[in-house]
Amino acid sequence: MADSPNCDLKSLTPLQLFERVTEQGEKVRALKAGKAPKDEIDAAVRMLLSLKQSYKTATGQDYQAGLPPTDLVLINNSTTKEEDEDFVDPWTVQTSNAKGVDYDKLIVRFGSSKIDTDLINRIERAIGQKPHRFLRRGIFFSHRDMDQILDAYENKKSFYLYTGRGPSSQAMHVGHLIPFIFTKWLQEVFDVPLVIQLTDDEKYLWKDLTTEKAYEYARENAKDIIACGFDINKTFIFSDLDYLGTSTGFYRNIVRVQKHVTFNQVKGIFGFTDSDCIGKISFPAIQAAPSFSSSFPQIFNGKENIQCLIPCAIDQDPYFRMTRDVAPRIGQPKPALLHSIFFPALQGAQTKMSASDPNSSIFLTDTPKQIKTKINKHAFSGGRDTIEEHRKYGGNCDVDVSFMYLTFFLEDDDKLEQLKQAYTSGELLTGELKKVLIETLQPLIAAHQERRKQVTDEMVKQFMTPRKLAFEF
Amino acid sequence: MADSPNCDLKSLTPLQLFERVTEQGEKVRALKAGKAPKDEIDAAVRMLLSLKQSYKTATGQDYQAGLPPTDLVLINNSTTKEEDEDFVDPWTVQTSNAKGVDYDKLIVRFGSSKIDTDLINRIERAIGQKPHRFLRRGIFFSHRDMDQILDAYENKKSFYLYTGRGPSSQAMHVGHLIPFIFTKWLQEVFDVPLVIQLTDDEKYLWKDLTTEKAYEYARENAKDIIACGFDINKTFIFSDLDYLGTSTGFYRNIVRVQKHVTFNQVKGIFGFTDSDCIGKISFPAIQAAPSFSSSFPQIFNGKENIQCLIPCAIDQDPYFRMTRDVAPRIGQPKPALLHSIFFPALQGAQTKMSASDPNSSIFLTDTPKQIKTKINKHAFSGGRDTIEEHRKYGGNCDVDVSFMYLTFFLEDDDKLEQLKQAYTSGELLTGELKKVLIETLQPLIAAHQERRKQVTDEMVKQFMTPRKLAFEF
Repeated sequence: MADSPNCDLKSLTPLQLFERVTEQGEKVRALKAGKAPKDEIDAAVRMLLSLKQSYKTATGQDYQAGLPPTDLVLINNSTTKEEDEDFVDPWTVQTSNAKGVDYDKLIVRFGSSKIDTDLINRIERAIGQKPHRFLRRGIFFSHRDMDQILDAYENKKSFYLYTGRGPSSQAMHVGHLIPFIFTKWLQEVFDVPLVIQLTDDEKYLWKDLTTEKAYEYARENAKDIIACGFDINKTFIFSDLDYLGTSTGFYRNIVRVQKHVTFNQVKGIFGFTDSDCIGKISFPAIQAAPSFSSSFPQIFNGKENIQCLIPCAIDQDPYFRMTRDVAPRIGQPKPALLHSIFFPALQGAQTKMSASDPNSSIFLTDTPKQIKTKINKHAFSGGRDTIEEHRKYGGNCDVDVSFMYLTFFLEDDDKLEQLKQAYTSGELLTGELKKVLIETLQPLIAAHQERRKQVTDEMVKQFMTPRKLAFEF
Repeated sequence: MADSPNCDLKSLTPLQLFERVTEQGEKVRALKAGKAPKDEIDAAVRMLLSLKQSYKTATGQDYQAGLPPTDLVLINNSTTKEEDEDFVDPWTVQTSNAKGVDYDKLIVRFGSSKIDTDLINRIERAIGQKPHRFLRRGIFFSHRDMDQILDAYENKKSFYLYTGRGPSSQAMHVGHLIPFIFTKWLQEVFDVPLVIQLTDDEKYLWKDLTTEKAYEYARENAKDIIACGFDINKTFIFSDLDYLGTSTGFYRNIVRVQKHVTFNQVKGIFGFTDSDCIGKISFPAIQAAPSFSSSFPQIFNGKENIQCLIPCAIDQDPYFRMTRDVAPRIGQPKPALLHSIFFPALQGAQTKMSASDPNSSIFLTDTPKQIKTKINKHAFSGGRDTIEEHRKYGGNCDVDVSFMYLTFFLEDDDKLEQLKQAYTSGELLTGELKKVLIETLQPLIAAHQERRKQVTDEMVKQFMTPRKLAFEF
């Protein structure tokens, strides 16, 4: 940390070293400007050179003012952004490519690891079951330290799952279900506790909402999440606005994270500016803290070192890169991550589905007729302009949104492959492909609505009450 | 707020206007640098000029880049600091004047009001009692909106008291007692609820401490505070680390304040930099939130609009200027304040007594012998170098620390006046004055120690348990 000048340089992360060099550079400039004694300036310059050398040793790069080390440089950092690069941060996803974001590039930039066949096979061996279609089809495509989780699991050491949602409106769309569908599967196959954070405080800070409204959205969204079928004995859902005021462990971890992250760091990671409110600036610590089991003393019996696995969309990774950077400095294990691709908007994979544009989304409240109309009217097609051309040249599954949605929701691998071949060859028309999607989504959403109707306020209250779960720690 | 560009400019505070001008200026520069179309630049320039005019109307001053409006300019802001000015912020008090900080200047700079004879007389009429010696002697010398509190009190409308302490070490010194002695008196004469915040989270953030240690200090300090004689039925003492995790109201108010204060503002008010941790940057909201009664639903029955009166040393004022700036924007009443001067170090009034320098302080744990030795050895004397000169020219009470301490602790006005005359005339020698102080402090501290011994862990627990107090709301 920048505020402990005497600590061993070798224990510093590249970003900390970067900050130390920056500070020392400023000190040298100030000494020179203030016409300080020559020996004082010389000593400061020697220190600067030594820090730059440590930086180079640690990162393999020369120190460049204003350019933090790449493992923490986000792709939205304007100093490194190329013209044709995708834009991905927790608030915006944008690409000029109709196939969607280039996820292989993202893995390199974010410094995560690809979920490859070896890892998928290892998961299959560990759980003794066929991996989820999201793994088989590269929908969860990237990870951090998943091998450690499997090591632990194979050694009968427990871990827990953490995922979440920012409850910005009452209406959730099908894309919002992806992390929950996958997390539910993970919970079932690994049989571990799960905590689900509803960041109603974040939504209050970012949107034009009252705390009351944000909290109401959190409770409404909890119903849709519960309707995914989570086990009440193994799952704790919490609103930040509520749980911060009910837990002895959560705030302590938040303030620990807040002590070890500077404004410079959140500026680099999230692009905050001096005009941002201090709530936004300190919020990342609130999303970080559930990565540490001591935030849930009621579940983990006060134990500090239960490892955490976070399934989430890749746009949430900046929060957890920060968390992983802080973890060892506050004596906590780094959380592991599983990253999903984005769920594309109906209009195409250039951006993710957004709840604020009703025509870009299929909502969990849509009727069968609305689903049909939206898909027929708005789903971007990879088909040809005329039936004749389509029959002749075939459709393009890489940009066809209906086909993309089917990869998310159609369980049957063989049928999906048949559809792909038939569409690509031109045998299957766009209208026919859309019909398959409509017939896949309509019963899925109807079933969700049926389950959601059965979620009572009492059940929401139970899920959201801090309590012991069905695990011993 | 800077993030609501369409709101009426007249509703903005000078600081908000200042930020709007700054932002607009940056926008104009960016447009010019980016060679934007001329009409776009012209429109932005017109907007800038109009904002500057609004700023001038609101403040009576021309906008100057980098110079925020004076009502929020702290005296530690280097751009406005004169060479001979006192330095006062929540962490440092320094002056070159042996008489101590120039408090009249501070009133002008901070924009507060002097506690004058009229106000003291009005307090006397309202409570039907002689005002406390701290009021009679100008130890509480400055206020904000105390007249409103008296208006309300005279109309049988209730208010509550809020004060606090940053528990940085187990040892409290006599200077730490000043706000508590005065607050106890206020509570007795007005018969109102009192909340006392122990900012253990702040100490964790600023010092090299664990959260456990900071919390331990908070509980130890609570014992000394309880020993001042607060009524357990009317007083709630809380540690931030604990209460944040126990209250449904506190965090909601914190996040409301955090939404309405930008990094620019805390930078201006507290001098934070980009290298400060995000915990420090967002902490001011945690000291602000107890100014709002809805932070204590258990005491105020969820009522939002009970006014708050904060007795504190003047160095804490920056927190509450910020709070008062935010209050109307989150629909809360502004807290009123009563400001005390600093308790001088034994070595002289150039700085305040500090617990970290044992020889600058008389601790509440000091033995009668230690008290005697410290005063005799370290208390800065306004006496002459030789007895002969002293008899001839007399001593100087304005710089004599023993005399200053007596103004704090000697209740008898007549005796204090006699001492002053005898010392000034040279009749009373330094050693004799010190003897009076020793004989005043020894029994006071012994009595405090006796009361503290009777404070049990059970009592601390009771004081620190969120609960209803002996008032109906």
